Parts: sequence; C-alpha cells; structure tokens
Amino acid sequence: MSPITPPLAGKLDGLHSSAIRDLLKLTARAEVVSLAGGLPDAALMPRERMAAAADAALSHHGCLQYTESPGWGPLREVLAQRESEGLGRSVGLAEVFVTHGSQQALALLAEVLLDPGALVVVEDPAYVGALQAFRAAGARIVGVPLDAEGMRTEALMTLLAEGERPAVVHTVSNFHNPGGVTMSPRRRAELARLAEEYGFWVIEDDPYGELWFDNPAPAPVASRAHNVIRLSSASKILSPSLRVGWMVAPEPVCRAVELLKQGADLCGSALTQQIAAELLADTEWLTGHIDQVRGVYGARAKALTHATRSRFGDRVRCSDAAGGMFVWVDFLDGTDTDRLLPQALAAGVAYVPGSAFAVDGGYRSAMRMCFTTADAPTLELAIDRLAHALG
Amino acid sequence: MSPITPPLAGKLDGLHSSAIRDLLKLTARAEVVSLAGGLPDAALMPRERMAAAADAALSHHGCLQYTESPGWGPLREVLAQRESEGLGRSVGLAEVFVTHGSQQALALLAEVLLDPGALVVVEDPAYVGALQAFRAAGARIVGVPLDAEGMRTEALMTLLAEGERPAVVHTVSNFHNPGGVTMSPRRRAELARLAEEYGFWVIEDDPYGELWFDNPAPAPVASRAHNVIRLSSASKILSPSLRVGWMVAPEPVCRAVELLKQGADLCGSALTQQIAAELLADTEWLTGHIDQVRGVYGARAKALTHATRSRFGDRVRCSDAAGGMFVWVDFLDGTDTDRLLPQALAAGVAYVPGSAFAVDGGYRSAMRMCFTTADAPTLELAIDRLAHALG
Repeated sequence: MSPITPPLAGKLDGLHSSAIRDLLKLTARAEVVSLAGGLPDAALMPRERMAAAADAALSHHGCLQYTESPGWGPLREVLAQRESEGLGRSVGLAEVFVTHGSQQALALLAEVLLDPGALVVVEDPAYVGALQAFRAAGARIVGVPLDAEGMRTEALMTLLAEGERPAVVHTVSNFHNPGGVTMSPRRRAELARLAEEYGFWVIEDDPYGELWFDNPAPAPVASRAHNVIRLSSASKILSPSLRVGWMVAPEPVCRAVELLKQGADLCGSALTQQIAAELLADTEWLTGHIDQVRGVYGARAKALTHATRSRFGDRVRCSDAAGGMFVWVDFLDGTDTDRLLPQALAAGVAYVPGSAFAVDGGYRSAMRMCFTTADAPTLELAIDRLAHALG
Repeated sequence: MSPITPPLAGKLDGLHSSAIRDLLKLTARAEVVSLAGGLPDAALMPRERMAAAADAALSHHGCLQYTESPGWGPLREVLAQRESEGLGRSVGLAEVFVTHGSQQALALLAEVLLDPGALVVVEDPAYVGALQAFRAAGARIVGVPLDAEGMRTEALMTLLAEGERPAVVHTVSNFHNPGGVTMSPRRRAELARLAEEYGFWVIEDDPYGELWFDNPAPAPVASRAHNVIRLSSASKILSPSLRVGWMVAPEPVCRAVELLKQGADLCGSALTQQIAAELLADTEWLTGHIDQVRGVYGARAKALTHATRSRFGDRVRCSDAAGGMFVWVDFLDGTDTDRLLPQALAAGVAYVPGSAFAVDGGYRSAMRMCFTTADAPTLELAIDRLAHALG
C-alpha cells in the first residue's frame, strides 16, 4: 500500500501570491531600474543609531525574554505620548497596541471586526496588503474611487443610501499607496461624520503620514471620531527590520486583538521593541532624521513627476507626490500598462501595472511608480526608458 | 443624535484569555515562588554573544530592509543543515520556513491544513497555544491521553477504527508541555505508520528536544514518515526575543504558508534572523552553550522532582523530567488543584492547575510545575510551601 498524502485546506484554492511580489522577483536584474518596489531606502535608515540602541538594550537581560502581547511597556508609553500629540488628546496606554508591522494589525483587526461575509469598503485602487487581510477573513469588499482629494466620500454616501452597511471602511489617508493622494480635511470630516452616524469602524492606515515634503498632512480622521482605529509604523521612518507597527484603538478592540495575538504569535521581540523605543523617544534626533528622509524623498519625487510630465505631457495625469513613496500615473491615451510591461522590462524599467491594485478590475491604463530608492538621474533614465518602450 | 459604536465580530464571544497568562499576572508578586511560568531562564541566555552578532549585523545595511517571507536566506541554509543532521536526510531550502516563533507556525498551519470543522487530534493534557490556534481555525478537537511513553497511540487507533478521520495529529514529542513525558520510539513508529496509512498530517512540535538531561531524545517522528511537519524554535535554546521559530515541511505546505504569511505580517525581522543565523551556525559555541543550559536545568529538574517525591511520597505520581522545562504531578489522593491554588498563593507558591490544559475537562488533581527559573533551594522552598498549603 502506498502512503496517502494528506490534502491542504480547500480555501487555499482562491489564494494567489501577490502580483507585486512575483513581479519583484522578475525585476531583480541589476540592469533594470525598478520603480516597481515599495521599499524605503535602506541607505537612509539609521544603522549606527540602531546599533547603539541594540548595544544598550543588550547590556542587560531585560530584552531577552518573552514580552507582553500588547508590546513592551516603555515602547507603548513613547507611542502614547507621540499619538497624544498627533491626535490632540491624551491617549491612554490601554489604547496602544504594538504589532509585528502594520500588516499584522490589519490581519488581526480583520478577525476582530469582521464576521464572514461582512462588508468592507476600501479605496480603489487599493492597498494590496489590506485586500489580502480582509479577503482572508471572508469579507465582501467594495471599492470607492479616489480623486485628488482622496476617498470620494460622496460615493460612500451613495452606497450607504442604497442600504449598504459596512462593518469597516479602510483608508490610507495620507500619501496613498498606490494612488499618491491625500484625503482633504473636508473629506476627513465627512468620513468621520458618516462613521458615527452609521456606526462603522474606520481603519485609518497611516504608514506615510510623517513623510510629507512641503506641508504637513492634515489632522488624522482619528482626531475627528471615536470609532476610528489608527495604524502607524516604524518601517518607513526607521527600519522595517524592527517589525514595529502600532495601533491606537478603543480599549475593547485592543483587548480583543490581544487575545488573537496570543494565538497568532504570542508576542513581539523585546529586543527590536527596545531599539524602537529608544529611537522614537529621542525626539530631537528623530525630527532631524525624518527631516533628512523627507528632503531626499521629496527631491526624488519632484524629479520623477517632473520627468514624467515633461516627457509625456497631456498624454498622462500624474499624482502630485506631496509625500510618501509613490506616484500614480494615468495614461489618458488608453495605453495598456499590463501589455506594456514586457516591453518596459526589455527597455530596462519596471513599474507595477494599475490592474494589480484594482478591487474589481480596471486601472488598465495606470501604473504605480516608487521614487524612494533611486536618485534623480536614475529616475530620469527610467522615464526615458519608459518613453522608449512606449515608442 | 448620539454616535453609534460599532460591534466586534461575533466569534470573539467564545474567546477567553489564556488561564496561564491571567494567572501569571497574579503571581508576579516578589514573595511568591512561581512554578507557574513557562519561561526559559533569561540569565542563561547568551546576551553578550547576541550583542556581538547584533553589532556584526548592523555593520552593514543588509539587515535593515524587509526580508523574504520564508525567512532570510542564510538563516534558512543554517537551519536546513541542522535539520538534515537531525532527520538523517538532506533537507532542501524549499522545505524550511522561518516563522515569528513556533506559535506563528501553528497559527498559519491551522489555516493551511484545516477546513472549518476538520478534526484535530491533540495530546491530553494539551499545549494550550496549539489549542488556541486550532480553535481559531474552527477545528473540532479530540484529545488522546498521554502516559509515560507519550501519546497513547492505541487510543488514536481506536478513534481511527471508529471511523474518525483527523486532518492533523499534533504532538509535542519531546519533554511534553505540560505532561513532561517523551514519546517512545515504538510509539513514534506507530504514529508514523498510521499517518501514512490514513493520510493525515502530523505536526511534530519540538521546542524542547535539545534540552535533554541524561540521554538525547529519540529520532523525530519526522524522520519516519513524509507527511510530518516538524516545528522547532530558537526561543528555548537562545532567546525568545529573537522571535525565530522554524518549520520543516513538504514544499507545497511551505508555499501555502508563505501566501498566508504575506497577509499575516509580510515577513520577519532581518535583524533578529541574522543574529539567530550567526549563533546557530557557530556549532562549537552552540554545543557548549546548550550543554550549559542542560546542566543547569537538569540539576533544577532533579531538585524539584526529588523534593516532590520525598515530601509527598505515595500521595503523588510525578513525571521524570528527563528534559525540557516542566514536571507534571498527579495527586493520587484526589487533591483539587483548582481549589488549592488560592491557599498555595497565600503560602507563597504558584503552579498551573491541570485543568488549564484539559481538552474536555479533567486533570483536576494534577498540576504543572516549571523548574527553569529558580535554583534548587528555592524549588525546595516552593515544595515546602506547597506542603504547608496542603496542610
């Protein structure tokens, strides 16, 4: 008798690897200028400061053991202080929860807030990691389009008027990934009002808010309504290898996330959380560090948008890149960016086609370009190559 | 109109905090000798070696960025080498997957291997973290009792003969938590044979295998059948703050876990994975380090079992503590360990009542004691206090 190989769970049939990740594997060739990644620039990360903090943490035994599921206490205190300033109210420790990057907050919140079949409204084009987390929880997902003012809240109002009752509305309010836009104060007020009127949760996913170039981002949606869960992260301002994200949420949400985190991975790393706490607490150093990152990214963003607009003119509409890491380009002449990609790769440039971010199809004439990891001349070369591929 | 507070998901109603964690909060008073924890001894963790490895990792930018979802390549190579030796065959890189501690492997495997309602067989008393992960996936859980030879495979055979068809059988094969016992070679062979005959997955959860005191643990179940997924961890031999666990599994299982890990938390920490890789690759140093931990834990285990047996004699049956971190004590006189706990705490000693590990009730006359974090005189004092509480 030959041994029987056991099956995997049936629900895996619908799961596929992220198109972006598969693409990244193809674009790792050195001769390709990749605007396809979504990574911050490692050269700007505070390596020496992290080494000093690691040394300090490892000078005693307190960073070696399992830590509390909601995060190492002193890190949560630093985060409560920072978030109190950002939200304009006193944020309590019980409202702060540290996760293994923001992605873990999305995954655990999807379990905590959503019964199977519950409706989640996302921005369209959407942050792919959020789609993965909501789909894994069995949610029904509906997209609301973006414009230059961020989520088109009047489209959300139409859904509500039609009788749709979302359990969660997800927004990347600042410097959207992939859309590049920021939600206006007027739209933020509208979203907060709708959340309280209709009783849905808002997840305000904000990894990029501090990476503004000319003007700070508007006050968070979370400063305008009590049922907004705010997510942020050290990945874009310090280093992703800390795996430190955090959530500010009402205490019952934090307690429910805590129960699930125990089953998911027990707790985070006391070592990387102590490193993060030291760097985030040193506000004078941190301000200077983030200023430097802003300066570099801002110059690169301007170089990329300038090159795109000068090269393609009326053929494209390009987001303003007022912060964050991404530019969204719409080809108004109907260029098919899925079909263009092999030619672009052959010409030595990579991007992510808009269709990779579509909730229900669409965005076939758009692309996301990331400006963080190449200098201005390289970004200009990338646009030259893209023009060459377009013929 | 007052704002509407949105609800949480209905499935949370059945979730409760781990009894052990809640208890730990109560026993943190300095005057209580706690045998209730399940923590390795931080004083034995290689703090200085970790600091040197952190320095080396942070001397370049390669540890700052997001890393691959299956783990940092060189760490997976070191693990493949170690596991090849343990399993007596060449383990390929594609079979090795790094998780955020072993608990994450359990949580992701529960999603990958189990459709809702699928049957999971666990050892009873059970590892609580595994119960949490399997319950979260909606599994039906049936316990099979332990004896001095580990899982009673004849009870599993009875279940199979009755027509039960488990999707997964979970075992802590070495130095069981909480049962303290090790599965005999005969039972391992029997479990492997049943897995291949009936086509179920075995999850061989092995965080303690290297912590043997007098004799090495028997060859893994995973060396005897192809559908065994082996889990291990750096938490008990190095430090839990690395958050490095790993899995050796057939490639399709690793690929499915990879898809889910992208949604769960994207990837682990390149920094702590580089530290782990350096320490695990230095086999000469590592052997000496683990020998030292074994020596200290072995002496403590002997002190605790000796004190328990001399103090309580025929009143108890006590596991042999041939390795790992735990002793399981059965009170043959019917002592109710749930009811005893408040008196024990008043007398200055804490333990975890057996009922906390029961799959379907039971073990009301048993307790788990952890011997890792107190020296011999303190462990003897703890047993004196327990005798005092028993009256």
